[in-house]
Amino acid sequence: MSTDCNHANHGYSSNKDAHLKRLRRIEGQVRGVQRMIDEDQYCIDILTQVAAINKALHAVSLGLLEEHISHCVVGAARESEATGDPEILQAKVQEASAAISRLMKS
Amino acid sequence: MSTDCNHANHGYSSNKDAHLKRLRRIEGQVRGVQRMIDEDQYCIDILTQVAAINKALHAVSLGLLEEHISHCVVGAARESEATGDPEILQAKVQEASAAISRLMKS
Amino acid sequence: MSTDCNHANHGYSSNKDAHLKRLRRIEGQVRGVQRMIDEDQYCIDILTQVAAINKALHAVSLGLLEEHISHCVVGAARESEATGDPEILQAKVQEASAAISRLMKS
Amino acid sequence: MSTDCNHANHGYSSNKDAHLKRLRRIEGQVRGVQRMIDEDQYCIDILTQVAAINKALHAVSLGLLEEHISHCVVGAARESEATGDPEILQAKVQEASAAISRLMKS
Repeated sequence: MSTDCNHANHGYSSNKDAHLKRLRRIEGQVRGVQRMIDEDQYCIDILTQVAAINKALHAVSLGLLEEHISHCVVGAARESEATGDPEILQAKVQEASAAISRLMKS
Repeated sequence: MSTDCNHANHGYSSNKDAHLKRLRRIEGQVRGVQRMIDEDQYCIDILTQVAAINKALHAVSLGLLEEHISHCVVGAARESEATGDPEILQAKVQEASAAISRLMKS
Repeated sequence: MSTDCNHANHGYSSNKDAHLKRLRRIEGQVRGVQRMIDEDQYCIDILTQVAAINKALHAVSLGLLEEHISHCVVGAARESEATGDPEILQAKVQEASAAISRLMKS
Repeated sequence: MSTDCNHANHGYSSNKDAHLKRLRRIEGQVRGVQRMIDEDQYCIDILTQVAAINKALHAVSLGLLEEHISHCVVGAARESEATGDPEILQAKVQEASAAISRLMKS
């Protein structure tokens, strides 16, 4: 593992509070949709809210991804250079790419 | 408003419990992601969880949309025929299409 | 099959020219991306173009979907009422929903 | 500009032929959809094809993105270290993140 990417030192660590705040807001939005359904609100209005939650989750993903690239992937690049083993970087890039692919499809 | 689509009689009413159950599960997943961030878990694992939440929300959207089409849109079609006013159906279809578009982009 | 949805009478038939025009434009955009790669243009600019093509394809999908709902699905609803068989409508709604799901994931 | 990311030396250069082959195939798929509309084929079958094109375009995007990260972003990281200016890397990561965001919404 890269020294930039071990426990308690992930890319996102410095923005932890911001991420948690966003996720608590999203949790509230999910509860809001439950209330809308419970109160028999109009389907389209509920769908609008669900789309807003998806957007908010995408914003969280992008933030995590950005930090992951600038810390973990870049750290792996550094390690690949230091050790002469290109596969350390390659593995990290492929892992990030698979994560992006899952987010695109979700 | 179509008689199929007024208060307490939306398309989704009969599946209310199923939707609420799904949304409570999603709420739990969102809290799970907060915990993962709080415990400094690996970024990619968090992104995988966020993608899973997006997927679960899409399933909820699709369920609501399906019920909306078979009740509200079809009800509007019936009303358009009864009144001879094609715009009642048109408006509902455009509204559904706008909702689908928002979900596609989210 | 519903009389609104048989050969040469699909929902989209009246807008055929508009759809074809859009798709020829998209075909040109795809050739444009080939040219960009051939000329070694900057990766991010190419990705921007690919995102634009995806957007244009989504607009085509939404147009087709809107017409499909107002013709084929509504036609199936009419047929379900005339025959007393709810499954005709149900099948069409599920088919549309599966198509929307594929578009959401793509 | 990073030495890994200048003209004729982008990340994707080594896979140029593979990308071009894929895009020519996509071009053919777009023409196929035109033919389907011209022959009044069933709306849902056309939507299935459009979803397949979107998927193929996403695969191209991911390939370009992967190469962009391992060449251009990593190159910018190296430059940031050599010059002591963190903004070179930061700018590249933000640019990549914006591209990912556009692809997610498309």
